[in-house]
Amino acid sequence: MELFTGIQKFNEPLYLESGRILEPYQLAYESYGKLNADKSNAIIVFHALTGSHHAAGRYENDTKSGWWDPLIGDEKVLDTTKYFVICINVLGSCFGSSSPMENGDKEPLRLKFPVITISDMVKAQMRLLKHLGIQKAYAIIGGSMGGMQALCMAIEYPNFSDRVICIASTYATQPWAIAFNRLAMEGIINDPRFKNGHYDTEDFAQEGLLGFAIGRMAGHISFLSPISMDKKFGRNYVETDGLYELFGRFQVERYMQYNGNSFAKRFDPLSYLYIIKAMNIFDATRNYDSLEDSLAHIQAKLTLISFKEDKLFRPYEMKEIKDTMSNIGKSNLVSFVCIDSDYGHDAFLVEYDKFDFYIKKALEEKARDGK
Amino acid sequence: MELFTGIQKFNEPLYLESGRILEPYQLAYESYGKLNADKSNAIIVFHALTGSHHAAGRYENDTKSGWWDPLIGDEKVLDTTKYFVICINVLGSCFGSSSPMENGDKEPLRLKFPVITISDMVKAQMRLLKHLGIQKAYAIIGGSMGGMQALCMAIEYPNFSDRVICIASTYATQPWAIAFNRLAMEGIINDPRFKNGHYDTEDFAQEGLLGFAIGRMAGHISFLSPISMDKKFGRNYVETDGLYELFGRFQVERYMQYNGNSFAKRFDPLSYLYIIKAMNIFDATRNYDSLEDSLAHIQAKLTLISFKEDKLFRPYEMKEIKDTMSNIGKSNLVSFVCIDSDYGHDAFLVEYDKFDFYIKKALEEKARDGK
Repeated sequence: MELFTGIQKFNEPLYLESGRILEPYQLAYESYGKLNADKSNAIIVFHALTGSHHAAGRYENDTKSGWWDPLIGDEKVLDTTKYFVICINVLGSCFGSSSPMENGDKEPLRLKFPVITISDMVKAQMRLLKHLGIQKAYAIIGGSMGGMQALCMAIEYPNFSDRVICIASTYATQPWAIAFNRLAMEGIINDPRFKNGHYDTEDFAQEGLLGFAIGRMAGHISFLSPISMDKKFGRNYVETDGLYELFGRFQVERYMQYNGNSFAKRFDPLSYLYIIKAMNIFDATRNYDSLEDSLAHIQAKLTLISFKEDKLFRPYEMKEIKDTMSNIGKSNLVSFVCIDSDYGHDAFLVEYDKFDFYIKKALEEKARDGK
Repeated sequence: MELFTGIQKFNEPLYLESGRILEPYQLAYESYGKLNADKSNAIIVFHALTGSHHAAGRYENDTKSGWWDPLIGDEKVLDTTKYFVICINVLGSCFGSSSPMENGDKEPLRLKFPVITISDMVKAQMRLLKHLGIQKAYAIIGGSMGGMQALCMAIEYPNFSDRVICIASTYATQPWAIAFNRLAMEGIINDPRFKNGHYDTEDFAQEGLLGFAIGRMAGHISFLSPISMDKKFGRNYVETDGLYELFGRFQVERYMQYNGNSFAKRFDPLSYLYIIKAMNIFDATRNYDSLEDSLAHIQAKLTLISFKEDKLFRPYEMKEIKDTMSNIGKSNLVSFVCIDSDYGHDAFLVEYDKFDFYIKKALEEKARDGK
């Protein structure tokens, strides 16, 4: 599999929904496989909150492969012998694209960085895709916040792709998810070491912000489900801790601590604040009178995949997209499936074998029908 | 309604499950109505995590009545013209009973206070009830952690009450609930103002521990359900905040901040740590080989009431008690109902009219059948 990684700089201004302007700005991205002669084989993969453009493959010295490696590669579902798969780091994220701490040669903007919306992310990505000569994608696909981008692109650039696959996502973030994000925000901004955004990043190499770690622990709860926790941890106790020690831990507690603390060392807290904000304010209906009006723009075939125990973006929310499409006479353009998984929201990063069939099906239909 | 409030001191040692001993110790309690001549009309009400013995009535200058006031009073479901209702502040809580910060005339034990279990709480309460001359209760009842106490008392003191009503609770706390409690623990102990338990309580009058407030915000998520949040808040934005302000808030976020911050001012953080610990380690099967063996001790009629959207203590967990009772030939002793409420765990403090019928029924059956 041919892997390319790079950063593309843009000098033309990017007008943001907020009224702010980014100029210049840059996007980090990776691609897998080869763009064909007529540039018709590109599949755009959108990453989630803490993901990056490193969706597949493995660099030397890395402990892990890219976040969707089981799906992207030669002979895999997103088959890089056929498709040119590309993943772009979203604006605001901390892996190379313009963000609170990434301002090219200039001082980082930190809290003066503008609030970014999902629509802004997609607009910036379209620039890069056009720059690469991709006028039309073979398919676009994403899970969680990646699904928001896919849906947003389907609405705002209806001719860009005939196939849109949206996984474990929503058309508008609901209060349960917003509430969890609030915990992270409170944890970060109230940690004295955050210094109102004027921290020195190197201070976090040994120990990340504890408040950020706590916020991330909250995130881990929201990504799982009560049932998946039962199965994963039960009431097992940490072998060296005692039940009657106040700070003794169940295994679920150790898991949270470990993941929260290690995450806080490797992700930028300002980027986290900006990305959760983008997710919170995502609402595909905002610039329209209703969800009907918004979805009426969609020309692509839309595959919606949700997971039964996902509490963050409930199957119910995805089904509303399907039902609304049907109500406006577009039932031929939409399919919805709710996968029986105990994993909760995390399923889109774990139980590949339960949903990869639907991705495959969408791509095969496109090959067969030409759209 | 006759309301009595007082503190009872005990000089005999209380041997705790942990192997630690409390000596002396004290319990704060309130009672409503009159104990009859043969002391047979007592109903014991157990409070939840942040509740107190102030379950009903209203003191001068108080903004709110007791936490179960709609259910306790003259002509109410727990009718104080008939019953003597009593509620005892649990060991470890910060409303007058022995706790990390309450050590009679001596210095508070703070982090040297012993870990308390639900069984310890119940053992202490039995002392007080016997002291009041109550050899047998008319009924015992509690929700959430109060339900754990009711179940524990039914197992460990099988002849004490013929009627046990257990609401929105569990026989053993599962990892989802433990995980939420962990957020509170992390928030509290990592807040620099906690000072490893050596804080000055008066420091929190103006502003409670921020880390505690964040932990409590997490609690509020766990008490609600995604659906109740949809209905209560939707995606409504705070009227003075802007969507493109990084720190702009949805109404659900303002609700969390308000409740988290005000709670941290009025509840003791060490008490919170000890009580969530007691909840986390509650497991009615621990001293037995199995849930069957444990529930086999129950002689009372057990009414189990759960709420459909309760994610903290799921209907599934309560139903396991029912099914296990049935498996061991005690189906005549148990009834289970799952109430259709969107409120989640909070329903037991909110939607009284949806479940008070089942309490009434249990009490009427006892009056009719003599047990």
